[in-house]
Amino acid sequence: VDIALLMTGNELMRGDTVDSNSAMIAQLLAPRGFDIACKVTVGDDIAQLLAALQLLSQRYPVVIINGGLGPTEDDLTAQALSAFSSCPLQQDAEALAHVQRWCAARGIAANAANLKQSWLPETAQLIDNPVGSAVGIQLRHGDCLLLAAPGVPSELRSMLRGELGTCLTAGFPQAEARLIRRLRVFGIGESRLQQQLQDRHADWPAAVKLGFRAGVPLLEVKLEVGNKADLAQRDQCEQWLRLLLGERLIGESDDTLATVVVDLLRQQKRCVTLAESCTGGMMASELTAVAGASTVFEAGFVTYADSVKRQILSVDGALLAQHGAVSREVVLAMARGALEASTADCVVAVSGIAGPSGGSEEKPVGTVWLAWGGRDNLQAKAFFCPAGRRFFQAIVTAIGLDLLRRYLLGSERLPGYFQRPDRAD
Amino acid sequence: VDIALLMTGNELMRGDTVDSNSAMIAQLLAPRGFDIACKVTVGDDIAQLLAALQLLSQRYPVVIINGGLGPTEDDLTAQALSAFSSCPLQQDAEALAHVQRWCAARGIAANAANLKQSWLPETAQLIDNPVGSAVGIQLRHGDCLLLAAPGVPSELRSMLRGELGTCLTAGFPQAEARLIRRLRVFGIGESRLQQQLQDRHADWPAAVKLGFRAGVPLLEVKLEVGNKADLAQRDQCEQWLRLLLGERLIGESDDTLATVVVDLLRQQKRCVTLAESCTGGMMASELTAVAGASTVFEAGFVTYADSVKRQILSVDGALLAQHGAVSREVVLAMARGALEASTADCVVAVSGIAGPSGGSEEKPVGTVWLAWGGRDNLQAKAFFCPAGRRFFQAIVTAIGLDLLRRYLLGSERLPGYFQRPDRAD
Repeated sequence: VDIALLMTGNELMRGDTVDSNSAMIAQLLAPRGFDIACKVTVGDDIAQLLAALQLLSQRYPVVIINGGLGPTEDDLTAQALSAFSSCPLQQDAEALAHVQRWCAARGIAANAANLKQSWLPETAQLIDNPVGSAVGIQLRHGDCLLLAAPGVPSELRSMLRGELGTCLTAGFPQAEARLIRRLRVFGIGESRLQQQLQDRHADWPAAVKLGFRAGVPLLEVKLEVGNKADLAQRDQCEQWLRLLLGERLIGESDDTLATVVVDLLRQQKRCVTLAESCTGGMMASELTAVAGASTVFEAGFVTYADSVKRQILSVDGALLAQHGAVSREVVLAMARGALEASTADCVVAVSGIAGPSGGSEEKPVGTVWLAWGGRDNLQAKAFFCPAGRRFFQAIVTAIGLDLLRRYLLGSERLPGYFQRPDRAD
Repeated sequence: VDIALLMTGNELMRGDTVDSNSAMIAQLLAPRGFDIACKVTVGDDIAQLLAALQLLSQRYPVVIINGGLGPTEDDLTAQALSAFSSCPLQQDAEALAHVQRWCAARGIAANAANLKQSWLPETAQLIDNPVGSAVGIQLRHGDCLLLAAPGVPSELRSMLRGELGTCLTAGFPQAEARLIRRLRVFGIGESRLQQQLQDRHADWPAAVKLGFRAGVPLLEVKLEVGNKADLAQRDQCEQWLRLLLGERLIGESDDTLATVVVDLLRQQKRCVTLAESCTGGMMASELTAVAGASTVFEAGFVTYADSVKRQILSVDGALLAQHGAVSREVVLAMARGALEASTADCVVAVSGIAGPSGGSEEKPVGTVWLAWGGRDNLQAKAFFCPAGRRFFQAIVTAIGLDLLRRYLLGSERLPGYFQRPDRAD
C-alpha cells in the first residue's frame, strides 16, 4: 500500500533538525506492507498544512502527519485537522485523562499548555502514546485515513510499534506483510558483494528482493519476500549469502561489532585489554557503550606518545627507534605490554597514522598496524585506510574489533580487507 | 525569498538514507536570504517527479531539485526536467568535457553511464560541480527557476557555495543577505537561556532575531539581522549574551569542547592525561579526533575494574572498600595515579554509574564523580545525569572536557550544572 507522509516543523525547514523520523517510519512500516510514495515537509503554518493535506489526501489512502502535536502555540496539527475536516476541536475525555496521568507521574499540575493537547477534532479518535504527553490522532477524511503522531522520535517509534501500527494494519487488511531478513556485514562493499552474488547465483529467485544499506562500518544486507509461500526461497538465498560471506558476516538486525564481541567474551568468560594509539580510545569507547561491558573489559590504554608506550606498556625504546611506532614489532610489544599490565587474557593493540600529517612514502597516512590475540598466540598485520581522520579512526576501530571477533571465533585465516593496493603484507 | 525543495531517491523513501542534505541547504541558503517554505520528497519515479515539479513551480519562484543526477538508469532528474519543459535532451559540450576530465583524472575511460551525465535539456545551462562527475542543471520554466544538483553531500555543499549559490543570488537580487552570528554554549538549556535573556533585556531589539539549535552536548545560539545597518544592534545583543553566558560560552561556529581544549593546551604548552571509568575512553576519543591532539595528549587510562584502578592508577584498595569506586576519594586518587603514571601536567578523572544496573539509593544510576586540575591543585565534584547509557557517556565526556577547559582558563567557580535536584554537593 502506497502512503504519504506530511512532516511539519519550522526546525525542519530552517535546517536546525535533520529529519530522521521519515527513515524510521519507512523502516518500521515496510515490513507491514506500507511504502512511502510521497513526502511533503512544511513549517508550522496552517495554510501550508491545509494545502498539503488537501493534496495528499486526494492521492493516497493514508497520510501520516508527523509533528505539531506539542503543547506550544506553534504546534498546529490538531487545529489543521480540525479545519481540514470541518470538525471543531473539543476536549477529549480520554486525552484529558492521559495528559493528567502524564503530569501526575511527574509530580506537576497540568497547565494550559499541557491541556491544549487534550483537544482533538470532534470526529477524531485518539491514538495512544505510551511514552509522552501528546496523544496521536486518527481521522477519516473521505477515502483517506489521516494519522497524526508527535515528532519526538522515541514517542513516534513506540506508537508505530503500538496503536498507530495497529490502526494501519486494521484499516488495510490487504497490505501484504513483507518478510525481511537483515544481515550485517563487515569487510566487503555493496557493489562487490552484489557482483559476486550475481556471478555465483544466476538462478537467484525473482521473489527474493535483495537490498543494501551502507553504514560505517557495517553494510546491511536485506532479503525480502512478499509472502510466506516464498519463505523457503528466502531461506535458500540466505544460505547462499551466509556461505559467500563466511567470516565477514557479523550478525543480524541490531548486532554491532561491539555487541558481538562483548557477547563472545561473556560466553567464553574472557576479558580483553586494549592498547590504542591512533584510535585514541575509540575502541574502548565502542566496547563500553555496550551494557554489561564491565564484565569483559577491565583496562584500556591510550598511549599516544612514544614515551608513554615505553613507560606504560614497556615497549623497548630500541624497537621504537629501529622500526618506528607504526610497525609490526612495536604493535606486538604494545599488545604484550597491555597484557602484562592487566589481568586480561586477550588484547588488541593498534598504532597507525591518522593524519593529516605524519605520513611518509614508506608509511603513508592511513597506514596502521594491529596486533591481537591471547597471551601465547599474538598475531599482527598491517592495514591501509586512507581517509579523513575521524573516518580512519572509525574504520580502524572496526578492524580491531573484527580481528578480536575472528580470534574469539577461532578463525584461522587473516582477513584480506583494507590492504595497500600496491603491495602484499 | 521563499523557495521549494524537491528531493528524489528511492533510498530516501525506503528509509535507507536519512536526508541530511535538506538541512544543509537550509543552513547554507538562509544567510543569503532564501528560506525553504515547502519540501517534497519522492522516489526515482518520473510521474512523481513531474507532478511535484508541476506543483512546486506554480507556487514558488525557485525549485531546487536534489538527487537523480547520477550515472545509473534510476537517475531521472535530467529526463524529468526535459519532459517537464518539453525540451529534448541533448549532449552538452561543456558537460561532456567535464565528464571526460573527471574520468581522465581517475585514469578511466568514460563509459556509457558516465556519458549519460552529459545529456541536458536543450535550453538548460550547466552548473559546475567542482567535486564530482555530475554537473548541475539550471532551467527557467515560466516564472520559476529550476536548479538541480546531485545528492552526494560533499558535491552539493561545494555547489551551494559555488555556482549554484551564484545562480540564486544573481536571479534574486532582492534577496536580503542575513548576517548571522553563531555562539556555542554548554551547561544551560534553550528555555532557561531564553527566559534569562527576556528577564534581563526587555529592550531586545526587534531587528535581531534570536534562534537556537539544540545539540548533544552543545547548544548553538544564533543572532541574525537582515541588513548591515542593524549590525551594531546585533553586536550589542552579542555582548549581552556573552555577559550572561560567562564561562558557559564555548566558542563560535565550528568550535567544540575538544577543539577548544586542544587549542588551550597547545597555547599553554601543557599536556593532559585522562583516567576514565564510566566514559570508557570516549573522552580520549573526542580529544584525539582533533588533528594535532598528539602534541597535548600523551596517555589515557580506561580503568573499568576496581582491580585495574588499584594496579594501574595505584588507587588504595582501602579507599575503594570504604568509599566505593564512585566517590570523591577514589576519583581524586585516580587523578593522582594518572599523573604519576604519565608526564602530563594536568588531568581529568571520572568514575560514575552509567547503568542500566549498578545504582543504589545513595548513588543512583547517573551519579558521577569527576576530578580535574594540575599536579598541585586537584579538585573534585559530583554531577548527576540520569539518562540512557550512551547519552550519559556523551554528557559526562562533555562535562570532563568542560571542567578541563574551565581549569585551563583559570576559572575560579565550580559550575552548577547537572546537579541532583534533591541535594547540594
